[in-house]
Amino acid sequence: MNTFGTHIRLTTFGESHSPAMGGVIDGFPAGMRVDYDALHRMMSRRRPGQSALTTSRREADVPEFLSGISPDGVTLGTPIGFIVRNADTRSEDYDHLRHVYRPNHADYTTECRYGIRDWRGGGRASARETVSWVVAGALAAQWLAERECAVAAGARLLQVGDVGYVDPFAWVRAGESAEGGSITATNWLETRRALEDEMMQEVEFARRDGDSLGGYIGCVITGLPPGVGNPVFGKFHAALAQAMMSINAARSFEIGDAADMCRSRGSEVLDAMTGFDADGNPLYSANHCGGVHGGITNGAPVYFKVGFKPTPTISMEVATVTDSGEPATLAARGRHDPCVALRAVPIVESLANLVAMDYLL
Amino acid sequence: MNTFGTHIRLTTFGESHSPAMGGVIDGFPAGMRVDYDALHRMMSRRRPGQSALTTSRREADVPEFLSGISPDGVTLGTPIGFIVRNADTRSEDYDHLRHVYRPNHADYTTECRYGIRDWRGGGRASARETVSWVVAGALAAQWLAERECAVAAGARLLQVGDVGYVDPFAWVRAGESAEGGSITATNWLETRRALEDEMMQEVEFARRDGDSLGGYIGCVITGLPPGVGNPVFGKFHAALAQAMMSINAARSFEIGDAADMCRSRGSEVLDAMTGFDADGNPLYSANHCGGVHGGITNGAPVYFKVGFKPTPTISMEVATVTDSGEPATLAARGRHDPCVALRAVPIVESLANLVAMDYLL
Amino acid sequence: MNTFGTHIRLTTFGESHSPAMGGVIDGFPAGMRVDYDALHRMMSRRRPGQSALTTSRREADVPEFLSGISPDGVTLGTPIGFIVRNADTRSEDYDHLRHVYRPNHADYTTECRYGIRDWRGGGRASARETVSWVVAGALAAQWLAERECAVAAGARLLQVGDVGYVDPFAWVRAGESAEGGSITATNWLETRRALEDEMMQEVEFARRDGDSLGGYIGCVITGLPPGVGNPVFGKFHAALAQAMMSINAARSFEIGDAADMCRSRGSEVLDAMTGFDADGNPLYSANHCGGVHGGITNGAPVYFKVGFKPTPTISMEVATVTDSGEPATLAARGRHDPCVALRAVPIVESLANLVAMDYLL
Amino acid sequence: MNTFGTHIRLTTFGESHSPAMGGVIDGFPAGMRVDYDALHRMMSRRRPGQSALTTSRREADVPEFLSGISPDGVTLGTPIGFIVRNADTRSEDYDHLRHVYRPNHADYTTECRYGIRDWRGGGRASARETVSWVVAGALAAQWLAERECAVAAGARLLQVGDVGYVDPFAWVRAGESAEGGSITATNWLETRRALEDEMMQEVEFARRDGDSLGGYIGCVITGLPPGVGNPVFGKFHAALAQAMMSINAARSFEIGDAADMCRSRGSEVLDAMTGFDADGNPLYSANHCGGVHGGITNGAPVYFKVGFKPTPTISMEVATVTDSGEPATLAARGRHDPCVALRAVPIVESLANLVAMDYLL
Repeated sequence: MNTFGTHIRLTTFGESHSPAMGGVIDGFPAGMRVDYDALHRMMSRRRPGQSALTTSRREADVPEFLSGISPDGVTLGTPIGFIVRNADTRSEDYDHLRHVYRPNHADYTTECRYGIRDWRGGGRASARETVSWVVAGALAAQWLAERECAVAAGARLLQVGDVGYVDPFAWVRAGESAEGGSITATNWLETRRALEDEMMQEVEFARRDGDSLGGYIGCVITGLPPGVGNPVFGKFHAALAQAMMSINAARSFEIGDAADMCRSRGSEVLDAMTGFDADGNPLYSANHCGGVHGGITNGAPVYFKVGFKPTPTISMEVATVTDSGEPATLAARGRHDPCVALRAVPIVESLANLVAMDYLL
Repeated sequence: MNTFGTHIRLTTFGESHSPAMGGVIDGFPAGMRVDYDALHRMMSRRRPGQSALTTSRREADVPEFLSGISPDGVTLGTPIGFIVRNADTRSEDYDHLRHVYRPNHADYTTECRYGIRDWRGGGRASARETVSWVVAGALAAQWLAERECAVAAGARLLQVGDVGYVDPFAWVRAGESAEGGSITATNWLETRRALEDEMMQEVEFARRDGDSLGGYIGCVITGLPPGVGNPVFGKFHAALAQAMMSINAARSFEIGDAADMCRSRGSEVLDAMTGFDADGNPLYSANHCGGVHGGITNGAPVYFKVGFKPTPTISMEVATVTDSGEPATLAARGRHDPCVALRAVPIVESLANLVAMDYLL
Repeated sequence: MNTFGTHIRLTTFGESHSPAMGGVIDGFPAGMRVDYDALHRMMSRRRPGQSALTTSRREADVPEFLSGISPDGVTLGTPIGFIVRNADTRSEDYDHLRHVYRPNHADYTTECRYGIRDWRGGGRASARETVSWVVAGALAAQWLAERECAVAAGARLLQVGDVGYVDPFAWVRAGESAEGGSITATNWLETRRALEDEMMQEVEFARRDGDSLGGYIGCVITGLPPGVGNPVFGKFHAALAQAMMSINAARSFEIGDAADMCRSRGSEVLDAMTGFDADGNPLYSANHCGGVHGGITNGAPVYFKVGFKPTPTISMEVATVTDSGEPATLAARGRHDPCVALRAVPIVESLANLVAMDYLL
Repeated sequence: MNTFGTHIRLTTFGESHSPAMGGVIDGFPAGMRVDYDALHRMMSRRRPGQSALTTSRREADVPEFLSGISPDGVTLGTPIGFIVRNADTRSEDYDHLRHVYRPNHADYTTECRYGIRDWRGGGRASARETVSWVVAGALAAQWLAERECAVAAGARLLQVGDVGYVDPFAWVRAGESAEGGSITATNWLETRRALEDEMMQEVEFARRDGDSLGGYIGCVITGLPPGVGNPVFGKFHAALAQAMMSINAARSFEIGDAADMCRSRGSEVLDAMTGFDADGNPLYSANHCGGVHGGITNGAPVYFKVGFKPTPTISMEVATVTDSGEPATLAARGRHDPCVALRAVPIVESLANLVAMDYLL
C-alpha cells in the first residue's frame, strides 16, 4: 500500500520525523542520462521555506541516489534507491499534540488504523512524504521528454478561495482551431500569470488572520499519442483520479470540462472528429472530454482539475478532544502553509508524469 | 487490467455482443448464505427496458453461478464464477458503424489501443459490462449487511442537467446533531423523492428532442468503523475515485463537501471532534470531509458525488469522420438511454460496496 | 490466489463437482487466429478415460469460449472467458468421504483453511482444475509458435517408479555440438519412445495391485532468445518452479542438470561460451545450467524436471481417522489414475508455455 | 520484479558496487519491539570474511533503519526503510571482466536483458543482494517467534559435493512417534554437527585446488498451524519453491521426502492421520509430504531441501569468449566463496521465515 504504479513502481518510506524519507523506483528503463540540475530545480519547486507564504521548515531536499544509476549518471535498468534526509526535525514543536487529535487531520484515524501514532508532525500522513514523489516524477519527466512525442505535464494554480477562477480550459476546449495545433502546456500556463498576484494576495490575507485557504490546480498533459489506457478498470483518467486523490488535502477530481459537461445536453458537448493532420493525428472540433474517450487517450491534450481543501492546521484556536475524550482547544504552533494548493503544483505535475510514464511503458 | 480490487478481486470478461458477459469473484469468504431474490432485485435495478427513459434492449440478466456456491446456496471460499448470457444481440443495428467513429465514444481510441475493434455496440467499452459489477456488488452488499456494523452503501440520482440540485449533504454535514446519530443512508434517500418527478420530466424532454442529458449521483456509506484505509497510496477515497471513474461516462469525483471546502477558509470547514458516544464511536461537529481524514475513515458516514456526462449517442444528426478520414454524419439508430446517470445508480452503489468490502477484508 | 501470471493472467474457477470449470485469460494479444483443432487435440491429451491406465471419468472437455475471440476466430485483445462443463459428476461416489479424511489428500487441510469442505471429489484441489490450465496453455502454444523464434515447450514422461530413467538430457547437455544446432524438443522426445512400453507395463502392475506410482516428467523449451527473465525475484526458473509446484502431486523441481551439478566441482560443470553463430546466437560447450544463467535465459534450450508423488487414492484399504478423530479405514471407490504423472505431461507443457509467453510479453 | 511477498512485501535495491544495498519492508505489523542484537547476529551469519572458506570481503553489514521503527525500537506499521552501505568496493579487481563473459554467470544474459551491464562484480546478480533479504528475514523471525505457536525456520548444510549426505529427515518422517511431539528444528540441527568437520574439509580441498563445490541445504519450519496456504496457484510449497529458486546458484527444490516419494508406490508413502493430540493438533504415522497436503499445511513440520550448484568463479583458468566473440581465458582474481551453499544457510532460513510470515498475515 506504499507502492504506486504498475510497470514503473515507486515504493516509498519515511515518516515526517524519521531519519529519512526515501523510495525505490522499480522498472525504470536503462540508458537514460539523468539531468541532476533539472531534478534539483523540480525539487526546489516543492521545497518549503521559499516565501512568507509557505512553511519555513528548511531542508536541502537533495536526494542521495544509492543504486540504479551509474557513476556517470546513466540509469542501469535496476531499481533506483534514493533517500532524502530529514535534517530539520524540531520534534518539541509537536509535544502538545501527544494526546490531542487535531481536527480534519489523520491523527485519530491513524490511531484507529495502526493502534499506534507518531504524534510528531503527522508520520506517513505528512506532506513531507511527497518529496519522494517529486524525485520519481522528475525522473519520469526527463524520460518522457526524451521520447519522440515529448510528453509533458504542466500544472498551475487555478484558484485560491474565490479568487482567480476563469475558464482555464478555453484554449484546450477550442481544440484544433487554436493556432494550428501549436497548443502546448507552456503557453496555456503563460496566460495564467496575470491572475497570480491577486491569488497570492488572497493567501497573504488568510495567513495574517492565522487562517488557511482551499484552492484548485489544473494540469495539462501534452504529447500523449492516441490509444493509451484500457477500457474497463485500467482507464487512464481513473488512474489519474486515484493518483491525485492520494495527494494530501485533495478532495475532488474532474477530467476535462466535467463541471460543464455533467450539466449539459449531449448535443452541446460533442468532440467531433474533423479529420487527420498530415502526421495522421486526429483533429477535433472541441475537447470537452479532456483527451480521453472510454478511458483511452484520443490524441488531444489531456487536462484535469484537482480541488484542495484548506489545511486544518491554523493559528486560530479551535475546539477538539483529547484521546480520553476531554474537550480541548488547539492552536497550531508548528510551521505550516496557509494554502497547501500552492505547494501541491509540482506534486500534481510529478504524479501526472508518473501515470503517463506507467501507461506508456 | 480487467481485475478490480485487492483482497476481493472481480475479474470480468465479455463484449456487448459476445455470447456472454461474466466474471470471477476471488477472495469471497466462505459461509455466507446467498439471498438470490435480493440479488435479482439488484440486477433488475440496473437492467434496461424498464421504462421509456431507458434503452429498450431486454435481457433476463439472471446470472448463472458456475462455482464457489454450494447447491444449497452457501459460499465455499473458492472463486465464484458466473456468466450472464447476451441473449438479445441485434448486430445488424450496428452495421452502419463499421467504418465510422462515433463522437465522444471509444471507437477511435479502441482501434488505436488494440489495432482491431468490435464495431457491434462498443465491445468492452459498452455499459453492458457493468452487469458483472452489479452481480459482485450485490453479493458484497449481502456480506456487508451481515457484519455487526451493517455497512451499507446507498446511491441516488441528485441532478439531471440543471434540475434537481439542492444541497444533498445537508443532513450528513450536520454530523452528530442530526437526530441523535440516527442518520442512515435510507432516510437521506427518502428526502430526495420530491425532486424525482421533475428530474424524470427533464429526461423525457431530452429524449423527445433526440438528445441526452448529463447528471450527478450521490452516495453515502454508513456503518464503516473508524480506521479503514491507508495513509499514502491506498487512501480509501482514492480507491473510491478510481472505482467511480471506471464507470462509463463518469467525469468527476468529489469526496464529502468538496465543492464548498475547496473554496473556503480552513476555519469555516472544520469537522471538530466533540467526544465519544456510549459505544466509543467518535462524535463530530460537522462532516465536511465526507467521513475520511488522511485517507482513513473517521467513523462518520462516508459520502461522495459522481458526475456523468450526457451520452454522446443521440438521434440528432452529428458530424464525424470515417476511418479513412472522410467527413460523415451519424444519427444513433440503436437503443440507448437519454440519461446514463439514471441507470448508473445501482452501479455506483455496487462499486461502493465492493470497495468497502475490499478494505474491510 | 486463483490467478496465474503477470502480463498474461489466467484466473480460474470451478470445483470438481460444480456446474462448470472455467477461466478468464487477460492480456492475450489481439490478432491471433485460433486453431480450434489443435486446441482440442491438446485438450484430449489431458482428458481422462483414454485407456485402462487413466481414470474412466468421461467428459467431452470441449471449452465454450464466451468472449475475447471474434466469430471468425481471431483474438480481440479483450479478456477471453471460457467454461468447460462438468458433465459427468456422480457425487454419490463420494458419499462415504463426508466425514473421513483421505491420507495425503487436501481433505483435512482444506477444512482447516476454509472451515468448510466440498467432500465430493476434492473441490478446488481436484486435478479437474487443470482442464482450464490446458485451455490457456494451448492458446499460449499457438501464440508462441507464430513468433519468429517459434518458442515451443515439449514435455515427456521420464520415469515411473524405478523404471525408465536414463539420462534424459544427454543431447541437451551436449550443447552446440549436437548436429549443428538442430536440436529440437521434438527429436529429444522421439528418442524416449523405446522406454514407453516398459513404463506403461509398470503402471499396469500398480493398477492391478490397486496401488499407484510416482514418476518424473522432463520438459524442454526451445526457441527462447537470450535475455528473458529478471535477476532477483523474477528469475525465469523461479517462475517455472512455482508453476510446476502448483500442479497436483508435484513434489520436486530441478532446472537443468541439477542433480549432478549440486554434487560436482565447479570446474566439471562449466557451460563455456565458445562463440556466436551466423545469426548472432551464442554457442556453448555444454548446457548443465538448463539454459538459464542468473535467472535469465542464455539462448540454449531451457530444460527442467518435475517429480510427482504417487496418488494417495488407492483401492487398497488404508488407515485414517474421521473428522471426530475416530479410527477408520478407507479404500478408494471413485475413478482414479494409478499414475498421475501420466496425465500431467500436457499440464507441464501448458504451464511451461504460459510462463514463456508471460515473460516474452 | 524486485519485490518479494504479498502481504508483507520486501522491495530491494542496490548493485554490488553501488553506494548501498537496501530495501523497504511494507506491511510489517505495528507494535513489535525489535531485538537489534539478534538481528546483528543473523546478519553476521551471512557476512563473508569469517573464515578461510568464505570470501574475504569485509563489511560491517550493520543496517541503518531510516523509518518504520520508533526511536525506542518499536515497529510503527509504516514501511521500514533500511540501507546497508557498500563500504569495501575495490572495483579495479573487476577491470579485466569489462569485455569478457564469465562462464555460468549472468554476464552475457544481463547484457541481453538490459543492453547495459555493470561489470564490477555482478550488479544485481551479486550475492551481495541477499544482505537485504537477511535484514527482512531476521525481523520476520522475531515476529514469528512472538506468536503463540512460535513458528521458526531452521536451515543447515546437508551435503557438500558427495560428502555429508545421510537421511536428514529421518526424525521428521517418523512423525508423531518422535519423543511425544517434542521435535523442534533445533534438535534436528544438533544431530547434524558430527558431519560438519568432514564437510568443511571437503570445501577446503576444493579451495586449495582453486575449484568450487556444489551442495545441499535442508530447512525445517516448525510451529505452523494446519490450514496455511491455498489450493491452486498459491500453494505454500510453490511459494517456498519460488523463494528458494531466487537464491543465487540454487538449482533444485524438493518438498518433504520428494526424491523417495516420486520413485515409490502410493501404499508405501502414506502419511496416515492417527488422531488428534490433547490440543486438537493432528497426529500422523509419517511425514513424507513435508507438512503440506494440497498446498496447505497439515500441522506436521514443513521440511524441504535446496540444491546449489558450485560457483563458477574459480581460480583455475577457464575458456570463454569476449563480447566481440573472440576466444579468451579467465581465472578469477576477486574474492570468492569456494562453496556458496555454506553462506546460503541463513539466506534459506530468512526466506523461509518471510514466506511463513507472508502466509500467516
